[in-house]
Amino acid sequence: MTSATENKPLSGITVVDLTRVLAGPYCTMLLADLGARIIKVEDPKGGDDSRHIGPFVDGESVYFASINRNKESIALDLKDERGRAEFEQLLSKADVLIENFRPGVMDRLGYGWNDLCAKYPRLIYASISGFGQTGPLKGRPAYDMVVQAMGGLMSVTGEPGGRPVRVGVSVGDISAGLYAAIGVQAALLKRARLGKGDHLDISMLDCQVALMENPIARYSATGELPRPLGARHSSITPFDVFSVADGFIVLAVGNDSLFKKLCVALERPEWAEDERFALLEARNRNHELLKQYLESRLQSGTKQAWADIFQSHGVPHGTLNGVDDLFASEQVEAREMIVPMPIGKAGEIKVASNPVKLDSMARSCGVGRAPRLDEHRESILREFCAPALDIK
Amino acid sequence: MTSATENKPLSGITVVDLTRVLAGPYCTMLLADLGARIIKVEDPKGGDDSRHIGPFVDGESVYFASINRNKESIALDLKDERGRAEFEQLLSKADVLIENFRPGVMDRLGYGWNDLCAKYPRLIYASISGFGQTGPLKGRPAYDMVVQAMGGLMSVTGEPGGRPVRVGVSVGDISAGLYAAIGVQAALLKRARLGKGDHLDISMLDCQVALMENPIARYSATGELPRPLGARHSSITPFDVFSVADGFIVLAVGNDSLFKKLCVALERPEWAEDERFALLEARNRNHELLKQYLESRLQSGTKQAWADIFQSHGVPHGTLNGVDDLFASEQVEAREMIVPMPIGKAGEIKVASNPVKLDSMARSCGVGRAPRLDEHRESILREFCAPALDIK
Repeated sequence: MTSATENKPLSGITVVDLTRVLAGPYCTMLLADLGARIIKVEDPKGGDDSRHIGPFVDGESVYFASINRNKESIALDLKDERGRAEFEQLLSKADVLIENFRPGVMDRLGYGWNDLCAKYPRLIYASISGFGQTGPLKGRPAYDMVVQAMGGLMSVTGEPGGRPVRVGVSVGDISAGLYAAIGVQAALLKRARLGKGDHLDISMLDCQVALMENPIARYSATGELPRPLGARHSSITPFDVFSVADGFIVLAVGNDSLFKKLCVALERPEWAEDERFALLEARNRNHELLKQYLESRLQSGTKQAWADIFQSHGVPHGTLNGVDDLFASEQVEAREMIVPMPIGKAGEIKVASNPVKLDSMARSCGVGRAPRLDEHRESILREFCAPALDIK
Repeated sequence: MTSATENKPLSGITVVDLTRVLAGPYCTMLLADLGARIIKVEDPKGGDDSRHIGPFVDGESVYFASINRNKESIALDLKDERGRAEFEQLLSKADVLIENFRPGVMDRLGYGWNDLCAKYPRLIYASISGFGQTGPLKGRPAYDMVVQAMGGLMSVTGEPGGRPVRVGVSVGDISAGLYAAIGVQAALLKRARLGKGDHLDISMLDCQVALMENPIARYSATGELPRPLGARHSSITPFDVFSVADGFIVLAVGNDSLFKKLCVALERPEWAEDERFALLEARNRNHELLKQYLESRLQSGTKQAWADIFQSHGVPHGTLNGVDDLFASEQVEAREMIVPMPIGKAGEIKVASNPVKLDSMARSCGVGRAPRLDEHRESILREFCAPALDIK
């Protein structure tokens, strides 16, 4: 263990990781970035399904690599006597077990919470599933888009009157990974105080409902069903996306005095005196007309030209960045948020790094290569298994 | 302290909370739900800005109430000698300080990390800001939509060829709150081991970049710029939203054998033999045509009728739920994910509860009323301040 590793906040925590594809692996990636040791236990027949999802570099899945950095891999057959014995050796020294099988699978393997909590009383056992371990839908399979749809998020995302759209990243999975990481750490803090393990039951659908906190509270108070608004704010104008000569910009003009600054920046100071636009309430009422005025003016300049003008006039704005713009952003670079990672034989890709930036850690967290299937078998078994098991 | 409180994982942790509006308060709500004590320190002139955002019930903001449950409030003027003395008394017994001012504000108050770390060596100090404490954009104000735009999320969300849309909830703020809660807990675990505090620097933009892990890795490997796809999956068909008689459903048909089941369920078994659709690769090529076929057939039934049919045929599907559907969902009810909360004089609204479900806690976490401004002044000062301060 290097001093850099010791310094990481979760150093010394060992996680046995049975998870596949996205929600679970995203959770254990977060824990790994913070210094936990992740022992990824994979099915000997091909390992984590995401190893087979393209694109590939030197035969290695980019999808898999990006979220399985900083982990070790061992392939164990949990239906085979020897695989089970080895798995139980891992559990006996682990702090946390995380799995994202469908509810019931772990019980059938003899590794449900009720089986393990008596034998390993300090073990924290986290289950991540589509709908949770309880309720009428508990057995249903889930996909990211299914929970985005069922949890209500798609019903508030898209153009007004248009078709619902999916959020362009897998927030159904990723949010479950985030809440699971919070729950695992909470259980670790409780164990530090009381000495006992706990069981965590994370449902992707629950997590979508949690993200909907504002639409839920508003609907409850007003009875008005929240609907998609494109990019527009429901009660502030102009607070929207606007097209310019070479793409889109965002304006976030929260009050009348900022609106005056905007009109000056656009060299259209008369708009701020126009009774259709001068006050917030009027702007909200005439938001479609104002958007036409603004976009006809904005067509004359580029993203960068308008950004410079708005910056110098103190008008809150943002450029609509594509992924290529993120790679070129000085702010993203200064924060070390996109960093190189080895892949394949001698390849390299760039991946998003860790946004949990503690002063005591390197900013990028250090992004190691994702493991090959079963890559760490020998070193893990040597460390965890009693000599009696005869590992060679 | 009741036994229910003792049982919560973060029981015994005291957080001094200077945050306003959304990212910070969402973080401290998560910590409060898990049992931390949150002392919300507010500006005496009106308190947290979100207290003034509608809709209101009995004059209380629903927006504020929904994310400030289970917290205490005290109003302190941090530019006044007495307010500063009281604030420092709080800090001397706190485990965590969380703030989301613009970078530089806390330094000017004399409460930057460098000011406090020597005096309170066990204090964990978390800063949440739009762009982080470092980098060329660090001083810029941020709004949810600005970071959704600048972080790339809007560039992958929307209809193909259409205008970019904002995700319908404030994921710019909420994700920062989630990563911050992870960072605070990690620092608490480290402190339990090494006895020292730490500084956490969370940037909303960094968190958006972290959510973009898959588009970033794919772009890096292939050079193809990720773009919005509506609700369609980029390499699986049919995996999309489809319109039915009374709304929309989602189909998530991942392989050829599931496609056969779908065609049987639709009473169109011949489509599974059609060379334009039989194999995944052909379906991907002909996805627009297949969507026309599917939607013309699906128009004949309702969401519920099709859901029953797909369920009995084992076809992965989901209904596109609005917020009203969440209130009626048996699964959401079984998981206690939407629960009542007192507001105003004798009012009640329903809010999203805690998705971090530990077996040792009540499922809903217990949702207490949000505090009135300065409601807990006396009890807090009595507990934290030395008698010499003469609190009456």
